[in-house]
Amino acid sequence: MTAADEVRALALAAKAASRVVAALPSEVRRHAVLSLADALLASRDAILAANAADVVDAREAVAAGEMSAATLQRLTLDARKLSEVAVQLREVAAQDEPVGRVRERTLLDDGLELRRVTCPIGVVAAVFEARPDAVTQIVALALRSANAVVLKPGREVRRTARAIVDAMHACLRTGGAIPPAAIAMVDDRAAVDVLLTLDDLIDLVVPRGSQALVRSVMQRTRIPVLGHADGVCHVYLDAAADPAMAVELVVDAKVQYPSACNAVEVVLVHRDAAPTLIPALVTRLRAEGVTLGGCARTVALAPDDVSLAADDDWHTEWGDLRLTIGVVDDVDAAIAHVNAHGSHHTDAIVTEANGAADAFLARVDSACVFHNASTRFADGFRFGLGAELGIGTGKLHARGPVGLEGLTTYRWELRGSGQRVASYAGAGARAFRHERLPAGDGAR
Amino acid sequence: MTAADEVRALALAAKAASRVVAALPSEVRRHAVLSLADALLASRDAILAANAADVVDAREAVAAGEMSAATLQRLTLDARKLSEVAVQLREVAAQDEPVGRVRERTLLDDGLELRRVTCPIGVVAAVFEARPDAVTQIVALALRSANAVVLKPGREVRRTARAIVDAMHACLRTGGAIPPAAIAMVDDRAAVDVLLTLDDLIDLVVPRGSQALVRSVMQRTRIPVLGHADGVCHVYLDAAADPAMAVELVVDAKVQYPSACNAVEVVLVHRDAAPTLIPALVTRLRAEGVTLGGCARTVALAPDDVSLAADDDWHTEWGDLRLTIGVVDDVDAAIAHVNAHGSHHTDAIVTEANGAADAFLARVDSACVFHNASTRFADGFRFGLGAELGIGTGKLHARGPVGLEGLTTYRWELRGSGQRVASYAGAGARAFRHERLPAGDGAR
Repeated sequence: MTAADEVRALALAAKAASRVVAALPSEVRRHAVLSLADALLASRDAILAANAADVVDAREAVAAGEMSAATLQRLTLDARKLSEVAVQLREVAAQDEPVGRVRERTLLDDGLELRRVTCPIGVVAAVFEARPDAVTQIVALALRSANAVVLKPGREVRRTARAIVDAMHACLRTGGAIPPAAIAMVDDRAAVDVLLTLDDLIDLVVPRGSQALVRSVMQRTRIPVLGHADGVCHVYLDAAADPAMAVELVVDAKVQYPSACNAVEVVLVHRDAAPTLIPALVTRLRAEGVTLGGCARTVALAPDDVSLAADDDWHTEWGDLRLTIGVVDDVDAAIAHVNAHGSHHTDAIVTEANGAADAFLARVDSACVFHNASTRFADGFRFGLGAELGIGTGKLHARGPVGLEGLTTYRWELRGSGQRVASYAGAGARAFRHERLPAGDGAR
Repeated sequence: MTAADEVRALALAAKAASRVVAALPSEVRRHAVLSLADALLASRDAILAANAADVVDAREAVAAGEMSAATLQRLTLDARKLSEVAVQLREVAAQDEPVGRVRERTLLDDGLELRRVTCPIGVVAAVFEARPDAVTQIVALALRSANAVVLKPGREVRRTARAIVDAMHACLRTGGAIPPAAIAMVDDRAAVDVLLTLDDLIDLVVPRGSQALVRSVMQRTRIPVLGHADGVCHVYLDAAADPAMAVELVVDAKVQYPSACNAVEVVLVHRDAAPTLIPALVTRLRAEGVTLGGCARTVALAPDDVSLAADDDWHTEWGDLRLTIGVVDDVDAAIAHVNAHGSHHTDAIVTEANGAADAFLARVDSACVFHNASTRFADGFRFGLGAELGIGTGKLHARGPVGLEGLTTYRWELRGSGQRVASYAGAGARAFRHERLPAGDGAR
């Protein structure tokens, strides 16, 4: 068997397993996720030993300047972090059942009832970088929503990820209900190339990591991808912005965690507010260590602290303590700028004028549009989704922060009593009733 | 300007128009669709004259054996058909408002409310063949759901489509609210090649026509496609099927309109029912002029009327009066066969046993799963969706028959009062409330 055949065989087994998982009742899947949490704690020594080996390599990479200290910190596990991972899994287990929910019911005719019912997507391929907790989170989300998953963790955490998956497989073998093939893992980069061609077996790809990783995945596959390459988020400070709130929200959105995708990269300021707001904002941001670029009007208001921005600066995700500031003529200009230069991720307006807020929220074409709140709230946990599969900036399927619902689709179930279409055609045809029934929206 | 630049300019103008349309209130868009219906009737003479010119060419094509008589019939308009088109438009206008609906509301904290709100997708490109009514239906669906549309009608109806679009443009110019650029049309095949590359401007492609057209569109673009290349639908006749109902449902699903994508192509029969059911079914289908292939067990039961099926016959969409019949050991084998060989479009079980029906509906991985009803019910009008944009067999976004909802997505709106993420992190952090509020689901 070639390496490509092996990857296909894994994906085929995951597809078969996904059909078994899809037929399991909610309680069995919920219980399985709880058992996985216990299994991770029970296998703590093996997982931490594997992680220690990954950490040795990572320290060398940091010393050689090939890895950031932040990445090293993210990939390092200890007993406390592993306990937190178990807590996260239990939170996913506790989420409302996402599949089997009746979203619509229509009585087409006597004895002919149509239901739109949520169901799992099938097999999800997760491609990510150096995050051990991404492995556990994605597995928990996938099983809770009755899917199978194929994992490709970053090279830097491959031993940790393998130890985690081994512990999970042992747990599933004991449990018996979920085939271990429902959690598949591939190790090397060549395997990803194969995975991304399997559009007959993989239903969704979720890349999590750097822009380069996400872009590379998007470019290499015809399978639908849930994710975002860029997070060029804007905060627009309106003429009617509360000045203190404006400054505090920009600081929060930029400084609290600058490498997050929902951190602000461009601040737009209404020209009437600019003369007072820009100097105050610049002083505060400089004190926080932020490097500032801006348009000519901004530079004129703070020539010592703001350099003239280059064209690219208006659509660059800095990911660090840099920020671009522009003056705009009105809310319409702000909206046009965001739609033209943004990445449709998260954009916010700060204003006390409800008309301007309503216009901004209605007309900015982004997954998340905020009024008087930090862009950093765009996050599955903060949104109350329990855990985050990823953040989507596409228009189809799940958008913005995505939890369990992003792993479901729906099917149309029609239950009749022998009805033929011919009865509804031609002379003397029956008419449809098309009577909306209460969906209830409860899980079956 | 090159031809490619012209197409891009049209799409850019459509994108700009889509932002205008997205900001219009429901009543304005509803009224616009009603006005379009009136405008088509008012321009009846011009439209029918253009259609007559298309019909002259089409008759020649039929005479030369390059077009089917059915296609000629479909593309021919008369006063009565045009009136029906106007009625269809009024039905789309009457549908419930699809955008601005609040699907979820969560109070994240005091004064910090999150809403998930439906919104338009943006710009839809519709690529279709010889159907004048597809032009009007797609325009009506797009405007009703606050989108713009770029149309590429089949060459065979280009004069008719142009006359229809001219009438609509004149109507929009009079109305004033919707920019005429919201309805764009391109004429030639080269323009489609350009359109399919514009993934920064076009949000969704809807191909309607032959398998070859749909497949070609899917292969040439990275823009999400709503559609289906194949409709290999199954009817499974269970051991506990009512024999008379089984025969009537298969006849309806095959004979009533064999070229429809929801017509049945493969019938599976439980081995216990086969000895009585297959001879009865074969006799009836032969009387209806259906040519039959089957597995060895089927041929043994009706050697004079059924020939041995080739491997390909099990996943071929015949589109005419041909059908393949197979004997299976049980409902599990039927489900496995459908999942392995079907096209995830529409599959039905005929049985009086609820356990078998539940298993089939839960485990067949198709957009539409039916019990004791003809596969031909898989249709937007019959489902009560008002009009049909298309039928999707993908797992993401809208699935099965798709009406207005398939042209919407959602955004997350967060309204706060200055909340910063920093307040919810670290020691003494605030806790989120994450309190579900009634969504109401009403349009804003």
